[in-house]
Amino acid sequence: MAPASNETTFRVRYSETDQMGGFYNSRALEWFELGRTEVLRRLAPYAEMERRGVLLPVVEAHVEYLGRARYDDELRITSRVELFGRARLRFEHVIEAVDGGASVVRGHTIHAITDATGRPVRPPAWLVAALSDGP
Amino acid sequence: MAPASNETTFRVRYSETDQMGGFYNSRALEWFELGRTEVLRRLAPYAEMERRGVLLPVVEAHVEYLGRARYDDELRITSRVELFGRARLRFEHVIEAVDGGASVVRGHTIHAITDATGRPVRPPAWLVAALSDGP
Amino acid sequence: MAPASNETTFRVRYSETDQMGGFYNSRALEWFELGRTEVLRRLAPYAEMERRGVLLPVVEAHVEYLGRARYDDELRITSRVELFGRARLRFEHVIEAVDGGASVVRGHTIHAITDATGRPVRPPAWLVAALSDGP
Amino acid sequence: MAPASNETTFRVRYSETDQMGGFYNSRALEWFELGRTEVLRRLAPYAEMERRGVLLPVVEAHVEYLGRARYDDELRITSRVELFGRARLRFEHVIEAVDGGASVVRGHTIHAITDATGRPVRPPAWLVAALSDGP
Repeated sequence: MAPASNETTFRVRYSETDQMGGFYNSRALEWFELGRTEVLRRLAPYAEMERRGVLLPVVEAHVEYLGRARYDDELRITSRVELFGRARLRFEHVIEAVDGGASVVRGHTIHAITDATGRPVRPPAWLVAALSDGP
Repeated sequence: MAPASNETTFRVRYSETDQMGGFYNSRALEWFELGRTEVLRRLAPYAEMERRGVLLPVVEAHVEYLGRARYDDELRITSRVELFGRARLRFEHVIEAVDGGASVVRGHTIHAITDATGRPVRPPAWLVAALSDGP
Repeated sequence: MAPASNETTFRVRYSETDQMGGFYNSRALEWFELGRTEVLRRLAPYAEMERRGVLLPVVEAHVEYLGRARYDDELRITSRVELFGRARLRFEHVIEAVDGGASVVRGHTIHAITDATGRPVRPPAWLVAALSDGP
Repeated sequence: MAPASNETTFRVRYSETDQMGGFYNSRALEWFELGRTEVLRRLAPYAEMERRGVLLPVVEAHVEYLGRARYDDELRITSRVELFGRARLRFEHVIEAVDGGASVVRGHTIHAITDATGRPVRPPAWLVAALSDGP
Protein backbone atom coordinates (compact mmCIF):
# COMPACT_ATOMS: atom_id res chain seq x y z
CA MET A 1 0.00 0.00 0.00
CA ALA A 2 1.33 3.45 -0.93
CA PRO A 3 2.34 5.74 1.94
CA ALA A 4 -0.59 7.96 1.08
CA SER A 5 -3.25 5.32 1.72
CA ASN A 6 -4.30 3.24 4.71
CA GLU A 7 -6.84 0.71 5.95
CA THR A 8 -8.02 0.66 9.52
CA THR A 9 -10.87 -1.10 11.34
CA PHE A 10 -13.18 0.00 14.11
CA ARG A 11 -16.52 -1.00 15.64
CA VAL A 12 -19.76 1.00 15.66
CA ARG A 13 -20.18 2.42 19.18
CA TYR A 14 -23.50 2.44 21.01
CA SER A 15 -23.12 6.23 21.26
CA GLU A 16 -23.03 6.37 17.45
CA THR A 17 -26.42 4.71 16.93
CA ASP A 18 -29.71 6.57 16.64
CA GLN A 19 -33.33 5.61 17.16
CA MET A 20 -33.57 4.30 13.58
CA GLY A 21 -31.34 1.43 14.78
CA GLY A 22 -28.26 2.10 12.61
CA PHE A 23 -25.53 4.73 12.94
CA TYR A 24 -26.40 8.45 13.00
CA ASN A 25 -25.40 10.16 9.74
CA SER A 26 -22.83 12.62 11.16
CA ARG A 27 -20.71 9.70 12.46
CA ALA A 28 -19.53 9.16 8.87
CA LEU A 29 -17.52 12.39 9.11
CA GLU A 30 -16.05 11.27 12.44
CA TRP A 31 -15.07 7.95 10.87
CA PHE A 32 -13.50 9.77 7.90
CA GLU A 33 -11.36 11.49 10.51
CA LEU A 34 -10.22 8.10 11.85
CA GLY A 35 -9.07 7.16 8.36
CA ARG A 36 -7.40 10.55 7.90
CA THR A 37 -5.55 10.23 11.20
CA GLU A 38 -4.10 6.87 10.15
CA VAL A 39 -3.09 8.05 6.67
CA LEU A 40 -1.39 11.10 8.16
CA ARG A 41 0.33 8.95 10.80
CA ARG A 42 2.16 7.21 7.93
CA LEU A 43 3.30 10.57 6.61
CA ALA A 44 3.69 12.50 9.85
CA PRO A 45 1.41 12.29 12.88
CA TYR A 46 -1.18 15.04 12.79
CA ALA A 47 -0.54 15.83 16.45
CA GLU A 48 3.07 16.47 15.35
CA MET A 49 1.88 18.58 12.39
CA GLU A 50 -0.20 20.74 14.73
CA ARG A 51 2.80 21.13 17.02
CA ARG A 52 4.71 22.38 13.97
CA GLY A 53 1.86 24.79 13.33
CA VAL A 54 0.23 23.10 10.32
CA LEU A 55 -3.56 22.75 10.49
CA LEU A 56 -5.83 20.95 8.01
CA PRO A 57 -9.34 22.40 8.45
CA VAL A 58 -12.06 20.73 6.36
CA VAL A 59 -13.43 23.01 3.64
CA GLU A 60 -15.71 20.52 1.90
CA ALA A 61 -17.20 17.12 2.75
CA HIS A 62 -19.27 14.75 0.67
CA VAL A 63 -20.87 11.55 1.96
CA GLU A 64 -22.87 8.80 0.26
CA TYR A 65 -24.67 6.39 2.55
CA LEU A 66 -24.70 3.00 0.82
CA GLY A 67 -25.72 0.51 3.46
CA ARG A 68 -26.60 -0.03 7.10
CA ALA A 69 -24.29 -0.78 9.97
CA ARG A 70 -25.40 -1.58 13.49
CA TYR A 71 -23.99 -1.35 16.98
CA ASP A 72 -20.79 -3.39 17.40
CA ASP A 73 -20.48 -4.17 13.67
CA GLU A 74 -16.82 -4.15 12.64
CA LEU A 75 -16.10 -1.76 9.75
CA ARG A 76 -13.03 -1.16 7.61
CA ILE A 77 -12.18 2.32 6.32
CA THR A 78 -9.80 2.67 3.37
CA SER A 79 -8.49 6.22 2.95
CA ARG A 80 -6.28 7.81 0.33
CA VAL A 81 -4.86 11.32 0.21
CA GLU A 82 -3.58 13.43 -2.68
CA LEU A 83 -2.66 17.04 -3.27
CA PHE A 84 -5.65 18.98 -4.63
CA GLY A 85 -4.75 22.13 -6.50
CA ARG A 86 -1.77 23.94 -5.08
CA ALA A 87 -2.69 24.30 -1.45
CA ARG A 88 -5.24 21.67 -0.56
CA LEU A 89 -5.46 17.98 0.31
CA ARG A 90 -8.23 15.63 -0.82
CA PHE A 91 -9.02 12.46 1.13
CA GLU A 92 -11.10 9.71 -0.46
CA HIS A 93 -12.78 7.26 1.95
CA VAL A 94 -14.56 3.93 1.54
CA ILE A 95 -16.17 2.19 4.52
CA GLU A 96 -17.20 -1.47 4.28
CA ALA A 97 -18.32 -4.22 6.62
CA VAL A 98 -15.36 -6.41 7.64
CA ASP A 99 -17.70 -9.40 7.64
CA GLY A 100 -19.00 -9.78 4.07
CA GLY A 101 -17.60 -6.59 2.60
CA ALA A 102 -20.91 -4.78 2.06
CA SER A 103 -20.50 -1.06 1.28
CA VAL A 104 -21.57 1.25 4.09
CA VAL A 105 -20.28 4.76 3.29
CA ARG A 106 -18.21 6.41 0.57
CA GLY A 107 -17.10 10.01 0.31
CA HIS A 108 -14.37 12.59 0.41
CA THR A 109 -13.16 15.59 2.35
CA ILE A 110 -11.12 18.52 1.05
CA HIS A 111 -8.80 20.33 3.45
CA ALA A 112 -7.06 23.66 3.44
CA ILE A 113 -3.48 23.75 4.70
CA THR A 114 -3.07 26.62 7.13
CA ASP A 115 -0.75 27.94 9.80
CA ALA A 116 -1.84 28.15 13.42
CA THR A 117 -3.64 31.44 12.80
CA GLY A 118 -5.78 29.93 10.03
CA ARG A 119 -3.90 31.54 7.12
CA PRO A 120 -3.46 29.29 4.06
CA VAL A 121 0.11 28.13 3.51
CA ARG A 122 1.80 26.17 0.70
CA PRO A 123 2.09 22.46 1.51
CA PRO A 124 5.33 21.82 3.43
CA ALA A 125 8.05 20.30 1.25
CA TRP A 126 8.18 17.08 3.31
CA LEU A 127 4.44 16.60 2.70
CA VAL A 128 4.74 17.12 -1.06
CA ALA A 129 7.66 14.70 -1.14
CA ALA A 130 5.74 12.08 0.82
CA LEU A 131 2.69 12.40 -1.44
CA SER A 132 4.80 12.12 -4.60
CA ASP A 133 6.12 8.67 -3.72
CA GLY A 134 3.16 7.28 -5.59
CA PRO A 135 1.73 3.80 -5.42
CA MET B 1 -41.96 32.07 3.98
CA ALA B 2 -43.29 29.02 2.11
CA PRO B 3 -44.38 26.05 4.20
CA ALA B 4 -41.41 24.13 2.85
CA SER B 5 -38.77 26.47 4.26
CA ASN B 6 -37.80 27.65 7.71
CA GLU B 7 -35.31 29.73 9.66
CA THR B 8 -34.21 28.80 13.14
CA THR B 9 -31.41 29.97 15.44
CA PHE B 10 -29.14 28.15 17.85
CA ARG B 11 -25.85 28.69 19.67
CA VAL B 12 -22.62 26.74 19.23
CA ARG B 13 -22.26 24.40 22.21
CA TYR B 14 -18.99 23.86 24.05
CA SER B 15 -19.35 20.15 23.24
CA GLU B 16 -19.35 21.08 19.55
CA THR B 17 -15.96 22.80 19.59
CA ASP B 18 -12.65 21.07 18.89
CA GLN B 19 -9.04 21.86 19.72
CA MET B 20 -8.74 24.10 16.65
CA GLY B 21 -11.01 26.53 18.53
CA GLY B 22 -14.02 26.48 16.19
CA PHE B 23 -16.77 23.86 15.72
CA TYR B 24 -15.88 20.28 14.79
CA ASN B 25 -16.80 19.54 11.16
CA SER B 26 -19.39 16.79 11.79
CA ARG B 27 -21.56 19.25 13.78
CA ALA B 28 -22.66 20.75 10.46
CA LEU B 29 -24.66 17.58 9.76
CA GLU B 30 -26.23 17.75 13.23
CA TRP B 31 -27.16 21.39 12.61
CA PHE B 32 -28.65 20.47 9.22
CA GLU B 33 -30.85 18.09 11.22
CA LEU B 34 -32.03 21.00 13.41
CA GLY B 35 -33.11 22.84 10.28
CA ARG B 36 -34.75 19.73 8.87
CA THR B 37 -36.67 19.14 12.09
CA GLU B 38 -38.12 22.66 11.97
CA VAL B 39 -39.05 22.49 8.27
CA LEU B 40 -40.77 19.16 8.83
CA ARG B 41 -42.54 20.51 11.91
CA ARG B 42 -44.31 22.99 9.61
CA LEU B 43 -45.42 20.12 7.38
CA ALA B 44 -45.86 17.37 9.98
CA PRO B 45 -43.65 16.76 12.99
CA TYR B 46 -41.03 14.12 12.21
CA ALA B 47 -41.76 12.35 15.50
CA GLU B 48 -45.34 12.06 14.18
CA MET B 49 -44.09 10.84 10.79
CA GLU B 50 -42.06 8.11 12.50
CA ARG B 51 -45.11 7.12 14.53
CA ARG B 52 -46.97 6.75 11.19
CA GLY B 53 -44.07 4.60 10.00
CA VAL B 54 -42.40 7.04 7.58
CA LEU B 55 -38.61 7.31 7.92
CA LEU B 56 -36.28 9.71 6.07
CA PRO B 57 -32.79 8.18 6.18
CA VAL B 58 -30.02 10.34 4.70
CA VAL B 59 -28.59 8.88 1.48
CA GLU B 60 -26.27 11.75 0.56
CA ALA B 61 -24.81 14.77 2.33
CA HIS B 62 -22.70 17.61 1.03
CA VAL B 63 -21.15 20.34 3.18
CA GLU B 64 -19.12 23.45 2.35
CA TYR B 65 -17.38 25.14 5.26
CA LEU B 66 -17.33 28.86 4.53
CA GLY B 67 -16.37 30.53 7.76
CA ARG B 68 -15.58 30.04 11.41
CA ALA B 69 -17.94 29.99 14.33
CA ARG B 70 -16.93 29.80 17.96
CA TYR B 71 -18.43 28.62 21.21
CA ASP B 72 -21.64 30.47 22.12
CA ASP B 73 -21.85 32.25 18.75
CA GLU B 74 -25.48 32.52 17.66
CA LEU B 75 -26.14 31.02 14.22
CA ARG B 76 -29.15 31.03 11.92
CA ILE B 77 -29.97 28.05 9.71
CA THR B 78 -32.28 28.54 6.72
CA SER B 79 -33.55 25.25 5.33
CA ARG B 80 -35.71 24.44 2.29
CA VAL B 81 -37.11 21.10 1.20
CA GLU B 82 -38.31 19.86 -2.18
CA LEU B 83 -39.20 16.55 -3.77
CA PHE B 84 -36.18 15.06 -5.51
CA GLY B 85 -37.02 12.55 -8.22
CA ARG B 86 -40.00 10.42 -7.42
CA ALA B 87 -39.18 9.08 -4.00
CA ARG B 88 -36.67 11.34 -2.35
CA LEU B 89 -36.48 14.66 -0.52
CA ARG B 90 -33.71 17.22 -0.90
CA PHE B 91 -32.97 19.73 1.86
CA GLU B 92 -30.86 22.82 1.13
CA HIS B 93 -29.25 24.50 4.16
CA VAL B 94 -27.47 27.82 4.72
CA ILE B 95 -25.93 28.66 8.10
CA GLU B 96 -24.92 32.24 8.90
CA ALA B 97 -23.85 34.25 11.94
CA VAL B 98 -26.84 36.08 13.44
CA ASP B 99 -24.52 38.94 14.31
CA GLY B 100 -23.14 40.29 11.03
CA GLY B 101 -24.49 37.61 8.69
CA ALA B 102 -21.16 36.02 7.75
CA SER B 103 -21.56 32.66 5.98
CA VAL B 104 -20.54 29.67 8.07
CA VAL B 105 -21.79 26.51 6.32
CA ARG B 106 -23.79 25.68 3.19
CA GLY B 107 -24.87 22.28 1.93
CA HIS B 108 -27.60 19.78 1.26
CA THR B 109 -28.84 16.37 2.29
CA ILE B 110 -30.85 13.93 0.18
CA HIS B 111 -33.21 11.54 1.95
CA ALA B 112 -34.94 8.33 0.98
CA ILE B 113 -38.55 7.93 2.07
CA THR B 114 -39.01 4.50 3.63
CA ASP B 115 -41.38 2.51 5.79
CA ALA B 116 -40.39 1.33 9.25
CA THR B 117 -38.55 -1.68 7.79
CA GLY B 118 -36.37 0.53 5.58
CA ARG B 119 -38.16 -0.23 2.30
CA PRO B 120 -38.53 2.78 -0.04
CA VAL B 121 -42.09 4.05 -0.35
CA ARG B 122 -43.71 6.71 -2.55
CA PRO B 123 -44.03 10.06 -0.75
CA PRO B 124 -47.31 10.18 1.20
CA ALA B 125 -50.00 12.27 -0.55
CA TRP B 126 -50.18 14.78 2.32
CA LEU B 127 -46.45 15.39 1.93
CA VAL B 128 -46.65 15.92 -1.83
CA ALA B 129 -49.56 18.29 -1.31
CA ALA B 130 -47.69 20.26 1.33
CA LEU B 131 -44.60 20.56 -0.86
CA SER B 132 -46.65 21.69 -3.87
CA ASP B 133 -47.97 24.79 -2.12
CA GLY B 134 -44.92 26.57 -3.46
CA PRO B 135 -43.47 29.88 -2.38
CA MET C 1 -34.59 33.84 40.43
CA ALA C 2 -31.17 34.50 41.99
CA PRO C 3 -28.36 35.53 39.67
CA ALA C 4 -26.71 32.19 40.31
CA SER C 5 -29.55 30.07 38.94
CA ASN C 6 -31.27 29.75 35.60
CA GLU C 7 -33.91 27.83 33.67
CA THR C 8 -33.58 27.14 29.98
CA THR C 9 -35.40 24.86 27.55
CA PHE C 10 -34.23 22.77 24.62
CA ARG C 11 -35.43 19.86 22.49
CA VAL C 12 -33.90 16.39 22.24
CA ARG C 13 -32.04 16.21 18.91
CA TYR C 14 -32.18 13.20 16.62
CA SER C 15 -28.38 13.01 16.92
CA GLU C 16 -28.82 12.58 20.68
CA THR C 17 -30.97 9.44 20.47
CA ASP C 18 -29.63 5.88 20.49
CA GLN C 19 -30.99 2.56 19.33
CA MET C 20 -32.84 2.07 22.63
CA GLY C 21 -35.16 4.86 21.41
CA GLY C 22 -34.43 7.48 24.08
CA PHE C 23 -31.43 9.80 24.50
CA TYR C 24 -27.91 8.38 24.80
CA ASN C 25 -26.59 8.68 28.37
CA SER C 26 -23.62 11.00 27.67
CA ARG C 27 -25.99 13.71 26.35
CA ALA C 28 -26.91 14.48 29.96
CA LEU C 29 -23.43 15.97 30.47
CA GLU C 30 -23.84 18.03 27.28
CA TRP C 31 -27.20 19.29 28.54
CA PHE C 32 -25.65 20.15 31.93
CA GLU C 33 -23.28 22.32 29.90
CA LEU C 34 -26.25 24.15 28.33
CA GLY C 35 -27.53 24.97 31.80
CA ARG C 36 -24.06 26.02 32.93
CA THR C 37 -23.65 28.31 29.94
CA GLU C 38 -26.88 30.13 30.75
CA VAL C 39 -26.12 30.47 34.48
CA LEU C 40 -22.70 31.86 33.67
CA ARG C 41 -24.16 34.21 31.07
CA ARG C 42 -26.06 35.90 33.93
CA LEU C 43 -22.80 36.32 35.84
CA ALA C 44 -20.37 36.83 32.95
CA PRO C 45 -20.46 35.03 29.62
CA TYR C 46 -18.12 32.02 29.66
CA ALA C 47 -16.70 33.02 26.29
CA GLU C 48 -15.76 36.31 27.98
CA MET C 49 -14.29 34.44 30.96
CA GLU C 50 -12.11 32.37 28.63
CA ARG C 51 -10.97 35.56 26.90
CA ARG C 52 -9.96 36.85 30.35
CA GLY C 53 -8.08 33.59 30.83
CA VAL C 54 -10.38 31.87 33.34
CA LEU C 55 -11.22 28.23 32.56
CA LEU C 56 -13.65 25.95 34.41
CA PRO C 57 -12.64 22.36 33.64
CA VAL C 58 -14.95 19.68 35.06
CA VAL C 59 -13.31 17.63 37.82
CA GLU C 60 -16.32 15.55 38.85
CA ALA C 61 -19.71 14.72 37.36
CA HIS C 62 -22.62 12.79 38.78
CA VAL C 63 -25.78 11.89 36.86
CA GLU C 64 -29.00 10.12 37.87
CA TYR C 65 -31.27 9.04 35.04
CA LEU C 66 -34.82 9.30 36.30
CA GLY C 67 -37.02 9.02 33.24
CA ARG C 68 -37.10 8.71 29.48
CA ALA C 69 -37.11 11.46 26.90
CA ARG C 70 -37.51 10.97 23.18
CA TYR C 71 -36.57 12.79 20.01
CA ASP C 72 -38.08 16.28 19.82
CA ASP C 73 -39.36 16.22 23.41
CA GLU C 74 -38.99 19.65 24.98
CA LEU C 75 -37.01 19.62 28.22
CA ARG C 76 -36.30 22.25 30.87
CA ILE C 77 -33.00 22.40 32.71
CA THR C 78 -32.78 24.30 36.00
CA SER C 79 -29.20 24.96 37.08
CA ARG C 80 -27.73 26.54 40.18
CA VAL C 81 -24.12 27.37 40.97
CA GLU C 82 -22.32 27.91 44.25
CA LEU C 83 -18.74 28.17 45.45
CA PHE C 84 -17.45 24.78 46.58
CA GLY C 85 -14.54 24.92 48.95
CA ARG C 86 -12.13 27.74 48.27
CA ALA C 87 -11.37 27.28 44.60
CA ARG C 88 -14.15 25.30 43.00
CA LEU C 89 -17.67 25.76 41.63
CA ARG C 90 -20.50 23.28 42.02
CA PHE C 91 -23.42 23.25 39.58
CA GLU C 92 -26.64 21.43 40.47
CA HIS C 93 -28.90 20.48 37.54
CA VAL C 94 -32.46 19.19 37.25
CA ILE C 95 -33.92 18.26 33.85
CA GLU C 96 -37.68 17.80 33.45
CA ALA C 97 -40.18 17.43 30.64
CA VAL C 98 -41.77 20.79 29.80
CA ASP C 99 -45.01 18.97 29.07
CA GLY C 100 -46.09 17.29 32.32
CA GLY C 101 -42.99 17.98 34.38
CA ALA C 102 -41.75 14.38 34.65
CA SER C 103 -38.18 14.11 35.95
CA VAL C 104 -35.63 13.07 33.34
CA VAL C 105 -32.15 13.67 34.76
CA ARG C 106 -30.67 15.09 37.96
CA GLY C 107 -27.02 15.60 38.84
CA HIS C 108 -24.12 17.88 39.48
CA THR C 109 -20.74 18.86 38.15
CA ILE C 110 -17.78 20.25 40.12
CA HIS C 111 -15.35 22.55 38.35
CA ALA C 112 -11.85 23.73 39.05
CA ILE C 113 -11.09 27.40 38.39
CA THR C 114 -7.86 27.68 36.43
CA ASP C 115 -5.86 30.08 34.32
CA ALA C 116 -5.26 29.48 30.63
CA THR C 117 -2.38 27.10 31.40
CA GLY C 118 -4.55 24.89 33.60
CA ARG C 119 -3.17 26.12 36.95
CA PRO C 120 -5.77 26.47 39.73
CA VAL C 121 -6.50 30.06 40.67
CA ARG C 122 -8.61 31.67 43.42
CA PRO C 123 -12.09 32.61 42.18
CA PRO C 124 -12.02 36.15 40.71
CA ALA C 125 -13.49 38.75 43.08
CA TRP C 126 -16.30 39.65 40.66
CA LEU C 127 -17.36 35.98 40.63
CA VAL C 128 -17.37 35.69 44.43
CA ALA C 129 -19.38 38.91 44.63
CA ALA C 130 -21.90 37.68 42.08
CA LEU C 131 -22.33 34.35 43.88
CA SER C 132 -22.78 36.03 47.25
CA ASP C 133 -25.87 37.97 46.18
CA GLY C 134 -27.88 34.99 47.38
CA PRO C 135 -31.45 34.12 46.53
CA MET D 1 -8.22 -11.67 34.44
CA ALA D 2 -11.65 -12.73 35.67
CA PRO D 3 -14.41 -13.10 33.08
CA ALA D 4 -16.08 -10.07 34.55
CA SER D 5 -13.24 -7.65 33.86
CA ASN D 6 -11.44 -6.43 30.78
CA GLU D 7 -8.76 -4.08 29.51
CA THR D 8 -9.02 -2.39 26.13
CA THR D 9 -7.14 0.47 24.47
CA PHE D 10 -8.27 3.29 22.19
CA ARG D 11 -7.02 6.66 20.98
CA VAL D 12 -8.56 10.08 21.66
CA ARG D 13 -10.35 11.18 18.47
CA TYR D 14 -10.16 14.70 17.09
CA SER D 15 -13.96 14.82 17.34
CA GLU D 16 -13.62 14.19 21.10
CA THR D 17 -11.47 17.26 21.79
CA ASP D 18 -12.81 20.68 22.75
CA GLN D 19 -11.44 24.18 22.57
CA MET D 20 -9.67 23.75 25.91
CA GLY D 21 -7.32 21.39 24.04
CA GLY D 22 -8.11 18.15 25.88
CA PHE D 23 -11.11 15.81 25.59
CA TYR D 24 -14.65 17.10 26.17
CA ASN D 25 -16.04 15.84 29.49
CA SER D 26 -18.98 13.80 28.13
CA ARG D 27 -16.58 11.55 26.16
CA ALA D 28 -15.74 9.82 29.45
CA LEU D 29 -19.21 8.25 29.44
CA GLU D 30 -18.73 7.15 25.82
CA TRP D 31 -15.39 5.59 26.76
CA PHE D 32 -17.02 3.83 29.74
CA GLU D 33 -19.34 2.29 27.15
CA LEU D 34 -16.33 0.97 25.20
CA GLY D 35 -15.11 -0.78 28.33
CA ARG D 36 -18.61 -2.09 29.07
CA THR D 37 -18.95 -3.47 25.55
CA GLU D 38 -15.73 -5.44 25.91
CA VAL D 39 -16.58 -6.80 29.38
CA LEU D 40 -19.98 -7.90 28.16
CA ARG D 41 -18.44 -9.46 25.05
CA ARG D 42 -16.59 -11.89 27.37
CA LEU D 43 -19.88 -12.80 29.01
CA ALA D 44 -22.24 -12.49 26.05
CA PRO D 45 -22.11 -9.82 23.33
CA TYR D 46 -24.45 -6.97 24.16
CA ALA D 47 -25.78 -6.98 20.62
CA GLU D 48 -26.75 -10.61 21.31
CA MET D 49 -28.29 -9.63 24.67
CA GLU D 50 -30.43 -7.01 22.96
CA ARG D 51 -31.50 -9.58 20.39
CA ARG D 52 -32.61 -11.75 23.33
CA GLY D 53 -34.49 -8.76 24.65
CA VAL D 54 -32.25 -7.79 27.57
CA LEU D 55 -31.43 -4.07 27.83
CA LEU D 56 -29.05 -2.40 30.29
CA PRO D 57 -30.04 1.27 30.51
CA VAL D 58 -27.79 3.45 32.66
CA VAL D 59 -29.50 4.66 35.83
CA GLU D 60 -26.52 6.37 37.45
CA ALA D 61 -23.10 7.56 36.32
CA HIS D 62 -20.23 9.03 38.29
CA VAL D 63 -17.04 10.41 36.76
CA GLU D 64 -13.84 11.81 38.28
CA TYR D 65 -11.51 13.65 35.91
CA LEU D 66 -7.97 13.02 37.13
CA GLY D 67 -5.73 14.13 34.31
CA ARG D 68 -5.53 15.46 30.79
CA ALA D 69 -5.48 13.52 27.56
CA ARG D 70 -4.97 15.02 24.14
CA TYR D 71 -5.85 14.15 20.56
CA ASP D 72 -4.33 10.85 19.44
CA ASP D 73 -3.14 9.90 22.96
CA GLU D 74 -3.51 6.17 23.49
CA LEU D 75 -5.59 5.33 26.58
CA ARG D 76 -6.32 2.06 28.39
CA ILE D 77 -9.69 1.43 30.05
CA THR D 78 -9.96 -1.30 32.69
CA SER D 79 -13.58 -2.22 33.45
CA ARG D 80 -15.11 -4.59 35.98
CA VAL D 81 -18.73 -5.59 36.42
CA GLU D 82 -20.60 -7.03 39.41
CA LEU D 83 -24.20 -7.59 40.39
CA PHE D 84 -25.50 -4.62 42.37
CA GLY D 85 -28.46 -5.40 44.57
CA ARG D 86 -30.85 -7.92 43.08
CA ALA D 87 -31.55 -6.48 39.67
CA ARG D 88 -28.74 -4.13 38.72
CA LEU D 89 -25.21 -4.22 37.37
CA ARG D 90 -22.37 -1.94 38.48
CA PHE D 91 -19.40 -1.25 36.21
CA GLU D 92 -16.21 0.25 37.64
CA HIS D 93 -13.90 1.96 35.13
CA VAL D 94 -10.34 3.27 35.28
CA ILE D 95 -8.80 5.09 32.30
CA GLU D 96 -5.03 5.63 32.14
CA ALA D 97 -2.47 6.76 29.58
CA VAL D 98 -0.85 3.74 27.89
CA ASP D 99 2.40 5.70 27.76
CA GLY D 100 3.39 6.41 31.36
CA GLY D 101 0.25 5.20 33.10
CA ALA D 102 -1.00 8.58 34.31
CA SER D 103 -4.60 8.49 35.56
CA VAL D 104 -7.10 10.22 33.27
CA VAL D 105 -10.61 9.25 34.39
CA ARG D 106 -12.15 7.00 37.05
CA GLY D 107 -15.81 6.29 37.67
CA HIS D 108 -18.73 3.93 37.60
CA THR D 109 -22.08 3.36 35.98
CA ILE D 110 -25.07 1.51 37.42
CA HIS D 111 -27.46 -0.22 35.03
CA ALA D 112 -30.97 -1.55 35.32
CA ILE D 113 -31.68 -4.89 33.66
CA THR D 114 -34.86 -4.60 31.63
CA ASP D 115 -36.82 -6.34 28.90
CA ALA D 116 -37.33 -4.74 25.51
CA THR D 117 -40.24 -2.66 26.82
CA GLY D 118 -38.11 -1.15 29.59
CA ARG D 119 -39.57 -3.23 32.44
CA PRO D 120 -37.03 -4.34 35.07
CA VAL D 121 -36.31 -8.07 35.02
CA ARG D 122 -34.25 -10.36 37.27
CA PRO D 123 -30.75 -10.95 35.90
CA PRO D 124 -30.78 -13.94 33.52
CA ALA D 125 -29.34 -17.12 35.11
CA TRP D 126 -26.50 -17.32 32.58
CA LEU D 127 -25.44 -13.79 33.59
CA VAL D 128 -25.51 -14.55 37.33
CA ALA D 129 -23.49 -17.72 36.69
CA ALA D 130 -20.92 -15.84 34.62
CA LEU D 131 -20.55 -13.13 37.27
CA SER D 132 -20.16 -15.68 40.06
CA ASP D 133 -17.04 -17.26 38.56
CA GLY D 134 -15.07 -14.65 40.46
CA PRO D 135 -11.43 -13.77 40.14
